[in-house]
Amino acid sequence: MENRQILIDSLPEGKLAESNYKLVSSQVPAIKEGEVLCQTIAITIGAGTRAGLQGSASYAGAPKTGIVMNGTGVARIVDSQCDELSVDDLVVCQSGWQDFSVHKHTQVQKVSDDIDPGHHLGALGTNGLTAYFGLMKIGEPTAGDTVLVSAAAGSVGHMVGQMAKVYGCRTVGVSSSPEKCALLTTRLGYDESVSYLSPDFRAELKNACPDGIDIYFDNTGGDILGAALFRMNEQSRIACCGVVSQYDTSTPAGGPKGIPGLLINKRIRMQGFLVFDYLSEYEAARQQIKAWIDSGELNPLNDDFEGLEKAPAAFVDLLRGGNVGTRIVRVSN
Amino acid sequence: MENRQILIDSLPEGKLAESNYKLVSSQVPAIKEGEVLCQTIAITIGAGTRAGLQGSASYAGAPKTGIVMNGTGVARIVDSQCDELSVDDLVVCQSGWQDFSVHKHTQVQKVSDDIDPGHHLGALGTNGLTAYFGLMKIGEPTAGDTVLVSAAAGSVGHMVGQMAKVYGCRTVGVSSSPEKCALLTTRLGYDESVSYLSPDFRAELKNACPDGIDIYFDNTGGDILGAALFRMNEQSRIACCGVVSQYDTSTPAGGPKGIPGLLINKRIRMQGFLVFDYLSEYEAARQQIKAWIDSGELNPLNDDFEGLEKAPAAFVDLLRGGNVGTRIVRVSN
Repeated sequence: MENRQILIDSLPEGKLAESNYKLVSSQVPAIKEGEVLCQTIAITIGAGTRAGLQGSASYAGAPKTGIVMNGTGVARIVDSQCDELSVDDLVVCQSGWQDFSVHKHTQVQKVSDDIDPGHHLGALGTNGLTAYFGLMKIGEPTAGDTVLVSAAAGSVGHMVGQMAKVYGCRTVGVSSSPEKCALLTTRLGYDESVSYLSPDFRAELKNACPDGIDIYFDNTGGDILGAALFRMNEQSRIACCGVVSQYDTSTPAGGPKGIPGLLINKRIRMQGFLVFDYLSEYEAARQQIKAWIDSGELNPLNDDFEGLEKAPAAFVDLLRGGNVGTRIVRVSN
Repeated sequence: MENRQILIDSLPEGKLAESNYKLVSSQVPAIKEGEVLCQTIAITIGAGTRAGLQGSASYAGAPKTGIVMNGTGVARIVDSQCDELSVDDLVVCQSGWQDFSVHKHTQVQKVSDDIDPGHHLGALGTNGLTAYFGLMKIGEPTAGDTVLVSAAAGSVGHMVGQMAKVYGCRTVGVSSSPEKCALLTTRLGYDESVSYLSPDFRAELKNACPDGIDIYFDNTGGDILGAALFRMNEQSRIACCGVVSQYDTSTPAGGPKGIPGLLINKRIRMQGFLVFDYLSEYEAARQQIKAWIDSGELNPLNDDFEGLEKAPAAFVDLLRGGNVGTRIVRVSN
């Protein structure tokens, strides 16, 4: 049996390309006492990973080449040398972009085997938890709030809008193409959508938010953040979740005008967060999210590519804004 | 008796100049039922007033010419047609830059007559309250925190550092000239000072904050904010109080790089505030500030110009960073 692996072959200069990656094959590794061998079923690809390929400041640390591309996967245990986990158990692990990975048993998390394994990478994984904690902890939604979400069809954004609806908010999503904007209102439950590609984006954003914005869930930074700042209400909140507008470049732009002036005039709270800060509350959040899925209030979408070799293409497409929902690469059954 | 008044003669293009103002003389106004006539003793000049002379976004509204320059003063009542206030009472009012002003009795605030009237415009006025609420409500200081303050010798900044010391914080002040930086540590109780005019400002800021920054009380925005952002600790707070770096210009600069990226990586909370939001807590805050003055923990400085006609010069000098403490123009005794 071979272990297909996708390596970072070179660091992108400018936009990420499939050619920054290389597919190689190696032997399936052996495991030692306390370890498990995991066969990857699916991996998820998030825009945030792009920051790890930049030399600039990022929580992901300095970039390297010649290593397996990092990524979170759902996997089945095919060999175990520990008492805690058995062959056939389903787990979430830092599989990377490869067929097989070895982990200490403490480094994988056993998950339930009764739903689409992809949901463990989406709604019940980092994406869903990010949507949940960003909205709840920073946004603090109350009924009647206008909630703006950028990258609103994305892996996190497509759940933020639905969660905000549960709290009685009015939701406005920002996305790219007219097709994706249409999906926001027809499939993803947003009350309104606006395309940032429109030449009249700022006017359309204003029209879509006649009472201003109380919560802006920012997945993009850049010009959309700049435009949103001018529509924020007094005492409003900006949950800084991602900077996808700045990931796929080696020369990040300056910050938006009006900072800090507008923050003062409108008494805006702008706060960054990482989902990992809420680790102790993951389990309660997962139960809530699962309950919303069961009740039909939350319809998480997975956006599949088939085959490990498609992972680079899936990533490049994601950075171009090609995805709706959580991007999943199916690796095996 | 004449009423000397200083009018806004023209709006500044670029930097404010004394020639933007004009001194005129008019009759002392008569008062009606329910009104008081106030003779200005002193006015305070704050950098924030500069925003009201710009066409850009400001909480002060659109600028006008031909009107008396606005400003807060401490004044003595010289005529009263109400039961609530008597001749010789000391009040704080929106006197503007003039000898005499008329107010409804509900629009002035009677203050105690047992200390330097200037303190009602400084430590016990908007400056002191701004320092207090920004530090307490946004900064949330705890012992051991490193607190950075920009415009640290200024009307607000010179009190923030002293208040933070009360809570056991380590304080670092940013100012302009070596002389002002020396004052920060010798007279204003700061542990360290850094000059933003130094060519090695960023390195010196890093050296002055070896454990990073937990609270940044930002009076300036601009490049100092940009530099501070890179030294902020995880879960740190930026209290956005003023944008003095951007007031004295008609072309405000873009925002600092690293927003929102750094806010996310470090989970920074950046929050604007206006002192008026805490109106219901003013009285308690004043009691606390008064207690600190009495105990010697807080030494508020007033920085005097003598004579109403000096107000434009005092303002221009303030915007150049000439003041230490609260700038006061003494108008009468």
